[in-house]
Amino acid sequence: MANTVQTCFSPALYPLFADQEAIVVVVDIFRATSAICTALDQGVECMIPVAGLDEAHRYKQQGYLVAAERNAIMQEGFDFGNSPFHYMDPAVKGKTIVISTTNGTQAIEAAKDASVIAIGSFLNISALAEWIKPQGRDVIILCAGWKNKFNMEDSLFAGALAGLLLEEESFTTLCDSTITAGYLFERAEKDLYGFLENSSHRSRLKNLKLEEDIRYCLTFNTMDTIPVFHDGGIISLARLVNH
Amino acid sequence: MANTVQTCFSPALYPLFADQEAIVVVVDIFRATSAICTALDQGVECMIPVAGLDEAHRYKQQGYLVAAERNAIMQEGFDFGNSPFHYMDPAVKGKTIVISTTNGTQAIEAAKDASVIAIGSFLNISALAEWIKPQGRDVIILCAGWKNKFNMEDSLFAGALAGLLLEEESFTTLCDSTITAGYLFERAEKDLYGFLENSSHRSRLKNLKLEEDIRYCLTFNTMDTIPVFHDGGIISLARLVNH
Repeated sequence: MANTVQTCFSPALYPLFADQEAIVVVVDIFRATSAICTALDQGVECMIPVAGLDEAHRYKQQGYLVAAERNAIMQEGFDFGNSPFHYMDPAVKGKTIVISTTNGTQAIEAAKDASVIAIGSFLNISALAEWIKPQGRDVIILCAGWKNKFNMEDSLFAGALAGLLLEEESFTTLCDSTITAGYLFERAEKDLYGFLENSSHRSRLKNLKLEEDIRYCLTFNTMDTIPVFHDGGIISLARLVNH
Repeated sequence: MANTVQTCFSPALYPLFADQEAIVVVVDIFRATSAICTALDQGVECMIPVAGLDEAHRYKQQGYLVAAERNAIMQEGFDFGNSPFHYMDPAVKGKTIVISTTNGTQAIEAAKDASVIAIGSFLNISALAEWIKPQGRDVIILCAGWKNKFNMEDSLFAGALAGLLLEEESFTTLCDSTITAGYLFERAEKDLYGFLENSSHRSRLKNLKLEEDIRYCLTFNTMDTIPVFHDGGIISLARLVNH
């Protein structure tokens, strides 16, 4: 019997999809999950996602390095925002970093009862697909969206990842969200950057002069790192397996 | 200043969009809103949407004609299901009919605080767009979906209606859902019926041998009737205006 692929367009809808046996792939392309992938790939040992800024503050007071972003802006008094470039620094190697973002960490929070949560981005999409394929589990792609609304970039990722999985006979879908995301990706794949000209969040980042971040977050397969949420922290799957 | 068009893919997300000044267009193509349009066009005076079957039962006991459907099946002990063909009967003329359906009436319930709620379907899409255009109001297209999940046919309608409105300079959108629905409709418009082969709900109806209903619900512009929700009941806009 084939495994299913479903796409959930908003963390607020996740309870309709929740399945403890499934692999949940959380995605927030601009920019939380792209940043988390980058950080772990750069050697960050663990990222601790927290939903609220209060909790982020408490960690900061305890001496942790803390990343905090709201509405695409790094919050004052913290160490990092959610630009992937913040984590391209040899000084982060081996560190634990607490992270709180507008959408991405809220999505991880929504899915926290799932037994397997992986963190996806275009940066690691092929590695992620290759890892998922032999697991024999259903897959739920959870789009962080923008404040619980549908967004285009996370849906494009869902369409791309679903496409890679559905190439295999061992996966199937009857999920309208997944089929629609696939059509969206087909339309956009030759030029994701140009296609997203019309997306609301992309305009939001553009206004903040984050073009370099956008281009980076739309780059395919720069790494094999697969971040997974385990025991309250996000660590590299390779580290978890070798542990 | 231009008016905005937004699309809400699930009644569960409606609170994120709610705006008392906006026109909310509720759509449940298969089949509640297609049936409501048909019923009013056939001369039904008023339809009273109720969310729960208990409430539908109470109306039935009081002697009302009652339509009740769950999971695409007409419920026992009631007078109608939600096939549009149930209402193509001269006997319905002038009648009041209570209606409770899986998704459509729940969507109307979700939006009930809006000052203007219109009922949309492909059957009345052009009349609806022409009526909306001069109103000077923002528009929220509320897709009933399937049990609060995204569905393809309601999203296609959203893309089609948004396209008609956005032809005018007086409308604009930065809503990723609306843009995506527009792309979906562009891809499907030459053959909605064929396109929906892959949609989950269409398969559900197909299994129930409702091909004739599906073809009817995907027909454009068979009527000028615009049902609106007013004082707890759905009546024809023409009747409201002449009142």
